[in-house]
Amino acid sequence: MKTNILLTPGPTPVLPEALRVMAEPIFHHRTPQFRAVLKELFELLKYIFRTHESVYLLSASGTGAMEAAVVNFFSPGDKVLVVNGGKFGERWGKMAQAFALEPEIIHVPWGHAVDPAEIKKRLEANRAIKGVFTTLCETSTAVLTDIKTIAQYTQNHQALLVVDAISAIGGEDCRMDEWGLDVVITGSQKALMIPPGLAYLAAGKKAWNQAQESKFPKFYLDLKKYQKSLLEEDVPFTPAISLVLAQLEALRVFKKEGYEQVIARTRQLAGSVRAAAQAMGLAIYAKAPSNVVTAIELPEGVDGSKLVKTLRDEMGVTLAGGQDQLKGRIVRIAHMGYIRSEDLRAGFQAFAEALALQGYKCETAKALEQFK
Amino acid sequence: MKTNILLTPGPTPVLPEALRVMAEPIFHHRTPQFRAVLKELFELLKYIFRTHESVYLLSASGTGAMEAAVVNFFSPGDKVLVVNGGKFGERWGKMAQAFALEPEIIHVPWGHAVDPAEIKKRLEANRAIKGVFTTLCETSTAVLTDIKTIAQYTQNHQALLVVDAISAIGGEDCRMDEWGLDVVITGSQKALMIPPGLAYLAAGKKAWNQAQESKFPKFYLDLKKYQKSLLEEDVPFTPAISLVLAQLEALRVFKKEGYEQVIARTRQLAGSVRAAAQAMGLAIYAKAPSNVVTAIELPEGVDGSKLVKTLRDEMGVTLAGGQDQLKGRIVRIAHMGYIRSEDLRAGFQAFAEALALQGYKCETAKALEQFK
Repeated sequence: MKTNILLTPGPTPVLPEALRVMAEPIFHHRTPQFRAVLKELFELLKYIFRTHESVYLLSASGTGAMEAAVVNFFSPGDKVLVVNGGKFGERWGKMAQAFALEPEIIHVPWGHAVDPAEIKKRLEANRAIKGVFTTLCETSTAVLTDIKTIAQYTQNHQALLVVDAISAIGGEDCRMDEWGLDVVITGSQKALMIPPGLAYLAAGKKAWNQAQESKFPKFYLDLKKYQKSLLEEDVPFTPAISLVLAQLEALRVFKKEGYEQVIARTRQLAGSVRAAAQAMGLAIYAKAPSNVVTAIELPEGVDGSKLVKTLRDEMGVTLAGGQDQLKGRIVRIAHMGYIRSEDLRAGFQAFAEALALQGYKCETAKALEQFK
Repeated sequence: MKTNILLTPGPTPVLPEALRVMAEPIFHHRTPQFRAVLKELFELLKYIFRTHESVYLLSASGTGAMEAAVVNFFSPGDKVLVVNGGKFGERWGKMAQAFALEPEIIHVPWGHAVDPAEIKKRLEANRAIKGVFTTLCETSTAVLTDIKTIAQYTQNHQALLVVDAISAIGGEDCRMDEWGLDVVITGSQKALMIPPGLAYLAAGKKAWNQAQESKFPKFYLDLKKYQKSLLEEDVPFTPAISLVLAQLEALRVFKKEGYEQVIARTRQLAGSVRAAAQAMGLAIYAKAPSNVVTAIELPEGVDGSKLVKTLRDEMGVTLAGGQDQLKGRIVRIAHMGYIRSEDLRAGFQAFAEALALQGYKCETAKALEQFK
């Protein structure tokens, strides 16, 4: 590989400041020095979650935080609504089944966002529903869910709104307190600009009330242990120290730029990516496109799996292909976190070259112009 | 801090090669490049576990792997024996309770190792016991458990021997296949020379048979998912990529030196540490001392908490103090992984100075001579 331009929706490129801090000698976590790190990090996490609630830090993949949401706020047999319009909505459903919740699955055609009115209808039809599980950005289809509207309905119902915002927080606008989201989770390796290995979860009062009744056995993901430790700016189990230090650096940079500015910049990059694809004669797959990742439909006759391989192995540009029914049919290009306009420009240039190798020729000048 | 000598039993100093690789730009995990990393790492993990069984990689603290042992190989109501002679044995007991196992706790006086004959007796008295949970090194007391002998008894019984070897693997001799250990877990931040954030678990055939009957709901820690992914040299959930790369570097260095050599070197360092403490007139706390960490009793009148603070904040040497009943009464000095003789020499020099500040004066020449 000559270059290594990473445009996948997780992991995303790691901020240089974060890389640097991970190369420094480690120090112990039960020290005033590390408590100060956690204290500042916890405040910055509240800032990016747009919440006054505590944000809990788990040493785990995003899926670990999804499981923490299930085992802390629900009980076996609870009826829940699950929005399944892609691989991560599907994961909510599988997890709900694994934990013997009673999921009612809303099957949303891939590429489409769930209609909030559908959720309203189902909630009204069944007052026993205890939760609504959805993604904010469904990473597999690059579809954005209108969780702000959905939250208006869950607020008039006992159901908790549980949002997998793993690929979204720090890129999509997501205002936990203002919108009334009950449980929000994210991961470190998307818009938060560091490697995978940390996950974060915040919950509102309605969720904590329901947590009192939770009957799942739990230990590593037992948030009550994290609540107790938080009183001393600590975590209950040895955290992934180097990633915590990296996350602090990254969120400092985030805050310095400012929440509104980062969200606006990400949205602008998303617009540029969509315009570039369209300038190349390619269609955007998502009907409700997200701002953190764009799914681009490939022309007839182009083998998407081969395209992704050519880009990665011969041109040094890593994109994501499609999964399941979209295998070979789309590419997904991320534009969040530390992905910069010049990375996207180089990525699109290579993308056009790889398409040309498979016989799809197009003008690239107008596409590349988007990334000045 | 002028210096930063880390002599705690986790985290331990990170190998420079591992620090370096964490500072490199990240790459995607669903690539042939990363599969090659995992393939090599999985082989190296078998090498250090002394097993032909697969070793599973979890992005979690060691406690996550402890939980994986409980939820994959047991069911609610299972009777288990728990050896509790310190904080980590205690954790096995708490976890067993949290998951509604029926733990029979063997309370071992702190500083002592469990008598294997006691386990034999209890196993014979109750054929229904499904598991024996123990530590290999009980990090809180620096006591080594004779798991080789215990395994002789569990092999003639249905009970699985589940070993928390988090602070031990790669430092203490631990031969999973040869000794007949059923479930062995460890973490990345002790003798394996990288930061915390990864945990490893291996299980033998007897354990996998019992796993068939396990009735716990599970998802993130469901080892069947890891088994399935392993067929493609993969893991089911986004791993902590930078730590995986670091672990590969560290285990390459480990293997290059050789298992027998590393274990022998660690044992020798342990002997030097014990001799140094005794040369300073200090007693070794553990009756069955481990080779990865040594607990040293402090003289009457010395405030151990203050001593640890002085060492850390004024002398740049981080040791661990005692926990619970040992708070203020001992210090724990680790000598595993990347901790070298010269670190221990500097650590002991500072230790003697800090003791002198509290009025305990001793000759240090003979102590320091141990670390030539």
